[in-house]
Amino acid sequence: MPELTLISNDNYQPGLSIDCVIFGFNDNHLKVLLIKTLYENKWALPGGFIPIGQDIDDAAIEVLNKRTGVKGVFLRQFSTFGKVKRNDNHFSEEVLELLQISKKERKWFVQRFVTIGYYALVDLLKIFPENVSSYEVVEWVDHKEVPELILDHKEILDKALDTLRIELNLMPIGYNLLPEKFTITELQKLYETILDKKLDRRNFLRKITNIGILNKLDEKKNNVAHKAPGLYSFDMDKYEKVLKNGMNQAW
Amino acid sequence: MPELTLISNDNYQPGLSIDCVIFGFNDNHLKVLLIKTLYENKWALPGGFIPIGQDIDDAAIEVLNKRTGVKGVFLRQFSTFGKVKRNDNHFSEEVLELLQISKKERKWFVQRFVTIGYYALVDLLKIFPENVSSYEVVEWVDHKEVPELILDHKEILDKALDTLRIELNLMPIGYNLLPEKFTITELQKLYETILDKKLDRRNFLRKITNIGILNKLDEKKNNVAHKAPGLYSFDMDKYEKVLKNGMNQAW
Repeated sequence: MPELTLISNDNYQPGLSIDCVIFGFNDNHLKVLLIKTLYENKWALPGGFIPIGQDIDDAAIEVLNKRTGVKGVFLRQFSTFGKVKRNDNHFSEEVLELLQISKKERKWFVQRFVTIGYYALVDLLKIFPENVSSYEVVEWVDHKEVPELILDHKEILDKALDTLRIELNLMPIGYNLLPEKFTITELQKLYETILDKKLDRRNFLRKITNIGILNKLDEKKNNVAHKAPGLYSFDMDKYEKVLKNGMNQAW
Repeated sequence: MPELTLISNDNYQPGLSIDCVIFGFNDNHLKVLLIKTLYENKWALPGGFIPIGQDIDDAAIEVLNKRTGVKGVFLRQFSTFGKVKRNDNHFSEEVLELLQISKKERKWFVQRFVTIGYYALVDLLKIFPENVSSYEVVEWVDHKEVPELILDHKEILDKALDTLRIELNLMPIGYNLLPEKFTITELQKLYETILDKKLDRRNFLRKITNIGILNKLDEKKNNVAHKAPGLYSFDMDKYEKVLKNGMNQAW
């Protein structure tokens, strides 16, 4: 476990960690990137510590990369978790022994940790997680089949999903998650998958059209002549503008 | 400065602080609760440290109370700020001397701090800030006339205001900020004050009515017979429900 052995009191911000919730979408499935420790067979979010000389946003990118090999993902901070008891008794003497954590280093691991949550939504076919450590494996798990997680990681995951769902009301999504040309049905399925509910087709079409980020193309899907669904693409200028200003000009 | 002298290495979570952005609304003004240090004449958000045995949400309540005397405010966490250099050179030798911080304690004050931001929106006539310390004064300052703030406190304040404005799209506001019976104009002014822009009256009426949280009362304002504006109250059952479920069922 190379990461753990790097720890010394002065290299990292004490009592503060980062955990990443990476949602992967493809083919109407929403998955979460999880790590299973082989020494305890326990599941966790990819997390780690904050180098003393690094901004927390940069540390999040590095933490994700160090634990999963994943690069080039846009991480957004969503909440900080700081219940007193959240990591009480997390590392048992046995595990600390197994991981060859020195007596001197143990104080680090048993201190109280507050953790900052970051999340991202990616096309799960476009990023490439690796087993970075021989002590753990990295896996995509369907968000409806998430096993028991360590610490308060389930709470962190749930909060990230809530945040993602709220963001659907505030900004457009789909770019980088759908093919360049897509049908309204494909776009609707993306929303349905994230929201985990069926949407009314007509309402969806009206609302998504109102945002003004779609170009209707002069093409049909798959050359299916009869009643083939029309194809759309994102108008990236407008998409970027709505992303920047927020789409809900409610007031 | 009683708070500072309480610090010892083991009482507080190291390298982590809390800063509170308290917005106060009344009479179409939006103000921010700030602290001015008398020893340096510098303005700051009310902030403080996290007792090692306290959840961060509880610590935020205590920090606000200790610095401003304010109680009973519902604080919401909105973001954590962790640039490496954010508190570099904040405490000069002179100030540490002045505040009678012992040599041993100085290491605490000069370490890197990550800070968790909490905010609240209150009726500024209903809470009662006090000058808790003889080293500093507490003041409501109009949000458009905020002086230079220490550290990254201006960035924290701006982010809190952004968050508040986004929340207007996600949940109802006004309860506890308006009189029990109010006119649409009064409610609109609240939105206009927070958003810092004029709203179209007809659009506002339509949108606010659509949320379904208003009761139209069988009363007119001030007994002004001719063309007196109608009075409204919040339907608290529906208000609470929308608060819980989010009002933007966009999809």
